[in-house]
Amino acid sequence: MIADLQMSRRIRRTHFTSCVEELGVSGFTVVNHTLLPKSFSNSVEEDFYHLRNDVQIWDVGCQRQVEIEGPDAMSLVQMMTPRNIANAQVGQCLYLALTTDKGKIINDPVMLKLSDEKIWLSIADSDIFLWAKALAIGLGLKVTVKEPDVSPLAVQGPAAKDLMVEIFGKQVEELGFFRFKSLDFESTKQIVARSGYSSQNGYEIYLDNRDLGKNLWDAIWAGGEKYNIRPGAPNLIDRIEAGLISFGNDMTSENTPLECGMEKYCSLTDNIDFLGKEYLIEEKRTGSRRQIRGVIFSGKSQGPCTVPWQLYDGSTNVGQITSGIFNPSLGVNTGIALIEKGHWNLGQRINVVIGKGDIRRGQVCFLPFTVPENREIMMSL
Amino acid sequence: MIADLQMSRRIRRTHFTSCVEELGVSGFTVVNHTLLPKSFSNSVEEDFYHLRNDVQIWDVGCQRQVEIEGPDAMSLVQMMTPRNIANAQVGQCLYLALTTDKGKIINDPVMLKLSDEKIWLSIADSDIFLWAKALAIGLGLKVTVKEPDVSPLAVQGPAAKDLMVEIFGKQVEELGFFRFKSLDFESTKQIVARSGYSSQNGYEIYLDNRDLGKNLWDAIWAGGEKYNIRPGAPNLIDRIEAGLISFGNDMTSENTPLECGMEKYCSLTDNIDFLGKEYLIEEKRTGSRRQIRGVIFSGKSQGPCTVPWQLYDGSTNVGQITSGIFNPSLGVNTGIALIEKGHWNLGQRINVVIGKGDIRRGQVCFLPFTVPENREIMMSL
Repeated sequence: MIADLQMSRRIRRTHFTSCVEELGVSGFTVVNHTLLPKSFSNSVEEDFYHLRNDVQIWDVGCQRQVEIEGPDAMSLVQMMTPRNIANAQVGQCLYLALTTDKGKIINDPVMLKLSDEKIWLSIADSDIFLWAKALAIGLGLKVTVKEPDVSPLAVQGPAAKDLMVEIFGKQVEELGFFRFKSLDFESTKQIVARSGYSSQNGYEIYLDNRDLGKNLWDAIWAGGEKYNIRPGAPNLIDRIEAGLISFGNDMTSENTPLECGMEKYCSLTDNIDFLGKEYLIEEKRTGSRRQIRGVIFSGKSQGPCTVPWQLYDGSTNVGQITSGIFNPSLGVNTGIALIEKGHWNLGQRINVVIGKGDIRRGQVCFLPFTVPENREIMMSL
Repeated sequence: MIADLQMSRRIRRTHFTSCVEELGVSGFTVVNHTLLPKSFSNSVEEDFYHLRNDVQIWDVGCQRQVEIEGPDAMSLVQMMTPRNIANAQVGQCLYLALTTDKGKIINDPVMLKLSDEKIWLSIADSDIFLWAKALAIGLGLKVTVKEPDVSPLAVQGPAAKDLMVEIFGKQVEELGFFRFKSLDFESTKQIVARSGYSSQNGYEIYLDNRDLGKNLWDAIWAGGEKYNIRPGAPNLIDRIEAGLISFGNDMTSENTPLECGMEKYCSLTDNIDFLGKEYLIEEKRTGSRRQIRGVIFSGKSQGPCTVPWQLYDGSTNVGQITSGIFNPSLGVNTGIALIEKGHWNLGQRINVVIGKGDIRRGQVCFLPFTVPENREIMMSL
């Protein structure tokens, strides 16, 4: 079904919205009360190949920052996440799960440690501003919690590095993966991180100045023309292949980080306190009820999953695909799924039901889809 | 600019989304990570007149409930709002501002007192689930905070009462304004309130059962045919005329309830504790920096305001219109505006700048636009 998104002030514009409008954006979604452009003139498949071969510029200003500053900043963030952040360095990005007192996920931000007393959480789609502020109030912590008007801009794809060096200089070459530096742009300092929501090399610029939005976009666009730059967006085919899960799609506040493949970001045996710790320790001891896995399935090339596709083992509903689309590079339909215990083993055969009765043969894979263990299954379907 | 809304599981469907799709919904917005249908085949003007003459059915399932239950439920909610809720009765709805520790608005829900220990906050567009839960955790309160899967359905317009009596029986007639009862539908009990986001008489059914969504919709539709029922949505012309402000549009977490015309919902002299009390008392003492007002302005009939229209007194920017559209009944362009101190008096002449230089003559009014004090101004523009 196709319907317009009706605009109002409540659906916030980023520093770059006017730029994507000029380029003829054809579809948006809304994340953090903010516009996320999702499509231009090309198909998802065309964008997928272009992302893998060239370079794209993405308005990801919807990745809003929650700024936590003060002597208790690190303590508050540690309380919010199962990942041990004690050794985080200034200039480092960390992927975190945020959990409730029952160990349920409420967001999976990237944390940027700006100083020992100043942290940004670059968030997925939930109001962590309110969560962090209320915890700070309730616990009487010495922090201020703000949402600065920062709009990240992503430059993603094989040519991203060369292009970014042209704009921000040689220091870009020294950036390790998930590291950031404060670099010069038009006499301002802007945070540039080597990160992004794709399987390709890429960067994100955390632009803190709305008035510079068009200048930054235009500078990257001009530099990118020789690299065949195009506007783009987080690409569903690429994201699923890479196993990049999405809060609200592949996991909700019904789920725990252990269910969602985030065990390596849960420091359950460390001497730290965080919300929900006892619940996660108990889940680890007794085993998760469900797990995130990849699923491949047969039949005609399937467009994006907008309503979950149900999974069956015989007549038993054993889970659902929450993000899915045909992958032209792998030559198969792919999905990210939450699957019940007893049915998530590699190679498990299941049926995928698209909508009301289009049944496909499927098999369970590991994420990301490109790991060697999946190869035999890919060929056997 | 027109662009599609791209669907995914993250943009949640209500109990009624399939019903509005069948009726050819043409535009959505997103509130609380949930679809809000905004338009069907008619124009906003046609819908406005229909709402005032007949009856409409609205899928307002995006008005999510935050359920606060336990012995400390009333204490927690009192801490969250400047309105004294001590005398609230079971069966009563109360319109509230929710404020931060600095007295800034973060939502304006309708509170439903289900029992002395169970409250629903039927929220505008921010994750009050996280706010309430984190406050409860931080303060160690004896409550559980949940988001039940309840989708309100609104029936609005002059024929709403007769139609609702046909579906829910004579008890509907006894419902006072902003009161609710638990009434029968298909062997279930559902909360029915006399309320709604319009200037017309109306009701909201808080349906707690997704499987009954289509049955409830179809029952109202069938009963409504003789009343010329149509699908609709909160109507911008009606909402502005009635002075019904919208969180995210007309006020944000930059504003206070005193700035936003909510002084009568702020019990500043009562012996209650709530977040931000000292800031609101100080604002009341020294006066607000800005206030919400109505603005009328001249010139051609103006379509909806999607990006704020700036207000000038001479060369001074004195505020902005945050919701605006031509009102065919009043015969004038109308807007809800935040206006700086010294410029908000009734009849103040200002210029309204639409976009990049379409300048209109305007005047400041009271809200709602229909109060007698505005009459002379309406005629003089």
